[in-house]
Amino acid sequence: MSTPAASSTVATRILGIDPGLRNTGFGVIDTLGSQLRYVASGMIRSGEGSLPERLKVILDGVRQVITTYQPDQVAIEIVFVNVNPQSTLLLGQARGAAICGAVSCDLPVAEYTALQVKQAVVGHGKAAKEQVSHMVQRLLSLDGSPSSDAADALACAICHAHGSSGLAAMAGVGTRKRGGRLRL
Amino acid sequence: MSTPAASSTVATRILGIDPGLRNTGFGVIDTLGSQLRYVASGMIRSGEGSLPERLKVILDGVRQVITTYQPDQVAIEIVFVNVNPQSTLLLGQARGAAICGAVSCDLPVAEYTALQVKQAVVGHGKAAKEQVSHMVQRLLSLDGSPSSDAADALACAICHAHGSSGLAAMAGVGTRKRGGRLRL
Repeated sequence: MSTPAASSTVATRILGIDPGLRNTGFGVIDTLGSQLRYVASGMIRSGEGSLPERLKVILDGVRQVITTYQPDQVAIEIVFVNVNPQSTLLLGQARGAAICGAVSCDLPVAEYTALQVKQAVVGHGKAAKEQVSHMVQRLLSLDGSPSSDAADALACAICHAHGSSGLAAMAGVGTRKRGGRLRL
Repeated sequence: MSTPAASSTVATRILGIDPGLRNTGFGVIDTLGSQLRYVASGMIRSGEGSLPERLKVILDGVRQVITTYQPDQVAIEIVFVNVNPQSTLLLGQARGAAICGAVSCDLPVAEYTALQVKQAVVGHGKAAKEQVSHMVQRLLSLDGSPSSDAADALACAICHAHGSSGLAAMAGVGTRKRGGRLRL
């Protein structure tokens, strides 16, 4: 329901998350129409503590990223279902902690499968990790190749920016004017 | 490292949690030595929203229970690993959200398997749910039978109160004097 005038000047900041118990990748981008700008990316390492302690590191880490970069929306990858039930359970708990980091900051969270992310970024769902990383680097005009987890997180953010179920579905939710902050 | 004088007058309040995506049971008990007192129990229902919305209900619900009853420690059941990977992943995320509710309040969280809980409450690990519920009712001198999820949560709290890896391992962590609040 936004007006054309508003939509042409409002940038949306997206936080993409690639969840994992050991390493949770994150990537932040700004998007204005079809234009994208890299803001930041990195990794939250959960360390060697007990499971509750590690989940707290993920929860606090995501909240810290949100405090630092103030995203409007969050996109998180739907993790691969491992064949090992114990690993699946652990991964699920880590993903739950990452989502809790976002929703505890009252941010809307969209979910994408790896297939959707690859299709959005590379153009087909069977792309190799290197192709995803390469396209992320190109689409965001990065000088170097991002780390593997950060690349997947940035790819998820790009998927959200491009996807019809992403920004369009969330039109008017969490967007705001960024006074001259976006240089595209 | 607590003195005998202190340990005889300090009650510990334990929040037990039986995690689930649809229903998260909780039970709160006070424990002083081998004596137990029922405080409260209930259920957090996650509703019909999206997964992130449901995880937020669990996160906020656990935090609300903690705000209301001010437990010193939290005990959570290690959930059954389902044969369906998708269900396992969902359950994992729900459990992650429940743990995040506790750790975001800076409470120590202990984990127990269903086997440990049954052994602690009934005396053997193959007890039926009805036996667990019956023993919870007896141990806490309840007038009626608690609901299934609440009974499991209370059983987990009792297991923590009795277990050698529970209070003993957390000696001095999160215990505090409750001025005459415990009537045993």
